[in-house]
Amino acid sequence: MTTDKGSGLSGEDRLIARHFQPIARHPGALGLHDDAAFFTPPPGFDLVLTKDMLVGGVHFFNDDPADAVARKALRVNLSDLAAKGADPAGFLLALGLPSDADEAWLEAFAAGLAADAEQYGCPLFGGDTVRSPGAAIVSVTAFGTLPSGAMVHRAGASAGDRVLVTGTIGDAALGLVMRSDALRADKWQLAPAEREYLARRYLLPEPRTAFAAAVRAHASAAMDVSDGLAGDFAKLCRESGVSADIEADRVPLSPAARKAVAADADALRVALTGGDDYEIVLTAAPAKVAALTAAAAAAGIALAEIGRVTAGAGTPRFLDSAGRPLDLGQGSFSHF
Amino acid sequence: MTTDKGSGLSGEDRLIARHFQPIARHPGALGLHDDAAFFTPPPGFDLVLTKDMLVGGVHFFNDDPADAVARKALRVNLSDLAAKGADPAGFLLALGLPSDADEAWLEAFAAGLAADAEQYGCPLFGGDTVRSPGAAIVSVTAFGTLPSGAMVHRAGASAGDRVLVTGTIGDAALGLVMRSDALRADKWQLAPAEREYLARRYLLPEPRTAFAAAVRAHASAAMDVSDGLAGDFAKLCRESGVSADIEADRVPLSPAARKAVAADADALRVALTGGDDYEIVLTAAPAKVAALTAAAAAAGIALAEIGRVTAGAGTPRFLDSAGRPLDLGQGSFSHF
Repeated sequence: MTTDKGSGLSGEDRLIARHFQPIARHPGALGLHDDAAFFTPPPGFDLVLTKDMLVGGVHFFNDDPADAVARKALRVNLSDLAAKGADPAGFLLALGLPSDADEAWLEAFAAGLAADAEQYGCPLFGGDTVRSPGAAIVSVTAFGTLPSGAMVHRAGASAGDRVLVTGTIGDAALGLVMRSDALRADKWQLAPAEREYLARRYLLPEPRTAFAAAVRAHASAAMDVSDGLAGDFAKLCRESGVSADIEADRVPLSPAARKAVAADADALRVALTGGDDYEIVLTAAPAKVAALTAAAAAAGIALAEIGRVTAGAGTPRFLDSAGRPLDLGQGSFSHF
Repeated sequence: MTTDKGSGLSGEDRLIARHFQPIARHPGALGLHDDAAFFTPPPGFDLVLTKDMLVGGVHFFNDDPADAVARKALRVNLSDLAAKGADPAGFLLALGLPSDADEAWLEAFAAGLAADAEQYGCPLFGGDTVRSPGAAIVSVTAFGTLPSGAMVHRAGASAGDRVLVTGTIGDAALGLVMRSDALRADKWQLAPAEREYLARRYLLPEPRTAFAAAVRAHASAAMDVSDGLAGDFAKLCRESGVSADIEADRVPLSPAARKAVAADADALRVALTGGDDYEIVLTAAPAKVAALTAAAAAAGIALAEIGRVTAGAGTPRFLDSAGRPLDLGQGSFSHF
């Protein structure tokens, strides 16, 4: 850390003052002038806490735009909050800066963060800025609030519940494959705009924050889809002690993803197992589906019913149009 | 992530189940079975939040024992909470595992974390485990509670307040120098036990959690000393709009540090500016000093009065025994 003798501020202090204080608007953040922040949930509310870490070369490409890196790091946490039914309240940031991150990189990173903090009503409360000897490291802890006891768990699904999912599934996974496997992308015969769409879905998830209140009001169980719909929903079933039948045809795909799947049957396996969707998969009693659908429409979020919960613990089945289970396991996807 | 088909658990799931679930004892952690955790401060209490990130090769040595790495990552956050007057309530962990971290490393890491979570009453609430392409990365977000409005800020010191500091100052900085500069260490003529003491003070800070209640009851301003007493206390003075006179002779040094300073005058500059102390520096009205001293004694924590706050904003002066200001700046320590 270098010290600017004139101002008495260290390099880290100036970096924080310039780039991060504008995002720290909550009084409890103390303008980032202190070692810690304070926050008090309103009476009758619980705090919900979540934390994810993204590392360059693992969770994003080292040459991804810095603003997108910042936004993704915040958004994957906002996605967790939304899936639990919590409204965002704030976040803390730990940033490991690689030696080649210059002022322009930081500027862009902070601008992306500021835009999303504003858009999602989730101000910065504090954190830590350090040097990383390797790639950029971004660790966000986000917290939200909801009425006490209202957090939606993975456990809670029961036989007969409907299975629903927001948005579209598989875009990000296909976008990622496209970035690392040009031959594969050619096989899908996508137009430039379709490629761009999938790439962007990988780069910048869209947390379903506007759907959080409906989730906590109506869902019996929910989680966000970060490691692939098949695997993540299997976790929800395991925690709930149930299984499910999912109709693969009803899993919502974007036009670009649909085109890829039409050209390459294995693209469906990628879409269902690939991850980075940051959509919400939830279960709800049949009587709740209408309210969920109305809430989704009001929030401008697509919501699709894709199957139903069945009794008895077990890995959920993804069924093709003839009702035959797809084998999504271990990369040995067959059956199409 | 690899999947164990028999259990349906991924490698990450098994890692979490084995190493981290035992530390997640609070009901709000949901046994780490969910995407987020919940927590509700008692009525009339605020939540205090802090977050630090440690990176191998920057904040610890890559060959430091894994249990010490885990404990240090938690303790530096507990130190922030204590300095703000907050009692620990829980923490979240993001762990970036280097490729050479084997089962034994993880075992030791989790054991260290478990020991401290127990010792400080600060259970694990959740987090994230990822692969790091480089060194180990440990980011902890800790949260604590205190009566609403009782958080002690950096701002709040006023002229006439006494300046006090817990424990001893400079041990960790001297321990760090010793590890990286053998010739320097020889100059200090320390016995093996003294070297070991300083090395350990660098490796394993001792957060003054037991002193948090006294800090919030009696301090006008406080912070933990992580970047050196001189620089950190200057920040406190800046935020408070005051200055201070510190009597360098009264800054508490351990016997090992005293020996180093006696052999090498520059060792005092290292001690006062080096950092990694994780002691609390605080200011308090003269009438509060007796209560603070009694509380420290009851908690088994050393507390030394080292100076007094003066009117007018300015960098605090460190005075030698003749009352002459020491020049601690820019490595150009002179005057001894």
